[in-house]
Amino acid sequence: MAKPNNGGYLTTIAWENDGVKLIDQTKLPESLEYITCKNHLEVADAIKKLAIRGAPAIGVAAAMGLALCAKNSTSNNKTKMMEELGLAYDILLKTRPTAINLKWGLDRVIEEAKKYDGVDDIRKHTVFQAIKMSHDDVTINKMLGKFGSDLINDGEVVMTHCNAGALATVSYGTALGVIRSAMESGKKVSVIATETRPVMQGSRLTAFELVHDGIDVSLIPDTAVGYLMSNRMIDKVVVGADRILKSGHVFNKIGTYQVALLAKAHDIPFYVAAPLSTFDMNNGEEDIVIEERSVDEVVKIGDKRIAPVGVRIFNPAFDVTSPELIAGIITEKGVIYPPYESNLRPLFQSD
Amino acid sequence: MAKPNNGGYLTTIAWENDGVKLIDQTKLPESLEYITCKNHLEVADAIKKLAIRGAPAIGVAAAMGLALCAKNSTSNNKTKMMEELGLAYDILLKTRPTAINLKWGLDRVIEEAKKYDGVDDIRKHTVFQAIKMSHDDVTINKMLGKFGSDLINDGEVVMTHCNAGALATVSYGTALGVIRSAMESGKKVSVIATETRPVMQGSRLTAFELVHDGIDVSLIPDTAVGYLMSNRMIDKVVVGADRILKSGHVFNKIGTYQVALLAKAHDIPFYVAAPLSTFDMNNGEEDIVIEERSVDEVVKIGDKRIAPVGVRIFNPAFDVTSPELIAGIITEKGVIYPPYESNLRPLFQSD
Repeated sequence: MAKPNNGGYLTTIAWENDGVKLIDQTKLPESLEYITCKNHLEVADAIKKLAIRGAPAIGVAAAMGLALCAKNSTSNNKTKMMEELGLAYDILLKTRPTAINLKWGLDRVIEEAKKYDGVDDIRKHTVFQAIKMSHDDVTINKMLGKFGSDLINDGEVVMTHCNAGALATVSYGTALGVIRSAMESGKKVSVIATETRPVMQGSRLTAFELVHDGIDVSLIPDTAVGYLMSNRMIDKVVVGADRILKSGHVFNKIGTYQVALLAKAHDIPFYVAAPLSTFDMNNGEEDIVIEERSVDEVVKIGDKRIAPVGVRIFNPAFDVTSPELIAGIITEKGVIYPPYESNLRPLFQSD
Repeated sequence: MAKPNNGGYLTTIAWENDGVKLIDQTKLPESLEYITCKNHLEVADAIKKLAIRGAPAIGVAAAMGLALCAKNSTSNNKTKMMEELGLAYDILLKTRPTAINLKWGLDRVIEEAKKYDGVDDIRKHTVFQAIKMSHDDVTINKMLGKFGSDLINDGEVVMTHCNAGALATVSYGTALGVIRSAMESGKKVSVIATETRPVMQGSRLTAFELVHDGIDVSLIPDTAVGYLMSNRMIDKVVVGADRILKSGHVFNKIGTYQVALLAKAHDIPFYVAAPLSTFDMNNGEEDIVIEERSVDEVVKIGDKRIAPVGVRIFNPAFDVTSPELIAGIITEKGVIYPPYESNLRPLFQSD
């Protein structure tokens, strides 16, 4: 099975030799290492420990994990196999609570499994489906990138938060896909990446993949966002999303909300780039769990302790950006502008 | 010479056995270690490498450094000694550009030296002056703290950024002095400390000294400020300052400006606590140099590299908060409210 055509950019996850091969992002930026998961439990572990992260990437990882479960299953009838898949579905779904793509990816594979009666057909078609999703992800990112690139002018400086790049998707990226597309169309673009404490996706991942591709990138502490904005060093902000509600509320990496609020205060357009698989048209803001992650992410860097023993830690992994702070949401079907509720609806009615 | 009476709190810097004894803050929070500087060059190095930092603390450190130069001098006439002191003044002044207390502390010692003709008198009185400044610092912080404590209600949660505590002063602190004073008056106060990337003064210093004193403290990544504010988890913000202009513009640790702007957007009062020695009534905003520090602060933590080789870094150490974001400035002469220009003037006319 060939890897998706990614135009020379990093490929974060691929189905290879009956396993799921992925970049171990816990090792970045020091070394670019790959791991291969041979069953769905290994995929679940990889998602939990952030070896793979980013909403679109974990959607595909979960789908491939479920397909691995089918492929590895020794069940000899559909009922047994669907039971096995149901258990694997629950394990994979529980790995992380906030990004909706996880559920979206798992649902796609389960729906595919339901279509067939024979266990061999289920094995074959769930694997096909997961692989197809990984190829579609790249296609979608390139469509989305093209729409977004029209928003970026030649010579502009674009700030991004966290990593919504090749490393958050199968390849190419969402927010960074917009940058790549603008550059492919001949525009000169510079990127400002925020470090994104506590997990440092900006330093470790965004800076890494942009340096890898030779794209101009500067890294700043999260504390310097206001300084750069007030000194007119930022023209646009583009970030990704973990879940977008029909109201236009965007759940994304902790710190996104304050970047959006600061952008608004400095009249800098703030855009969100995300595929339709990131939209949750059913739930309200109060239904969504904001993942609270380990205190170790805040008190330690590597083995070095950077905070005293005995201090309490708040470590919410995500926050919510309200629609009035968002200039537009860039999808593979075009850029959606406010009012979001009415402008998003038609995109989902055709499904 | 006795240490200042600090009521059991940490003492950051003291004149001891003809040397300047100070807490080596580069070792915190792992271990509480002291170093003793035996000449002004060692003091300058300690300031440069952030073994001692915080505007009021480096003001006293520089003053003690200059006094050490006088004490160690073998000059046998005033002209020679003043030349030596002039050279030492320049070396100490150049250690850090933004905090005005450095110049304030040095000027006080030079003025004292000028008063005497005999070199022995100069030696004795410059040392007395530097020691007096260290004692005054604690007295001032306690006065300032008392005025500030009236602004804090029982049971409130106060956010602070960077470290404006005992470790940023001789003892007791400015912003954290306000917290200590409120608690001494019987109020229950909880503190939220921001990590304060890149140098982590929040994790390493503020959390350390509050845990040390048994004060309730929670640590958050700098990215979580907006989240906590929007979830109504913060009642007040109190920070220190490195330099305050007569217009009320506050130069303080990078990230202060965005915390102030976020506080304003969430209707949370934002206060600055600083002694009068932090005010610069002569210069305008454009005259002040914002120190740009080493890229290593951003790309490494300890020996661990957290950003890829080849990425450009912006690492401004300070930013400017405009007066309209500041609810009040807490000084040892009372709380000053807007309009700052006219309300600050009388404080300096009496000098």
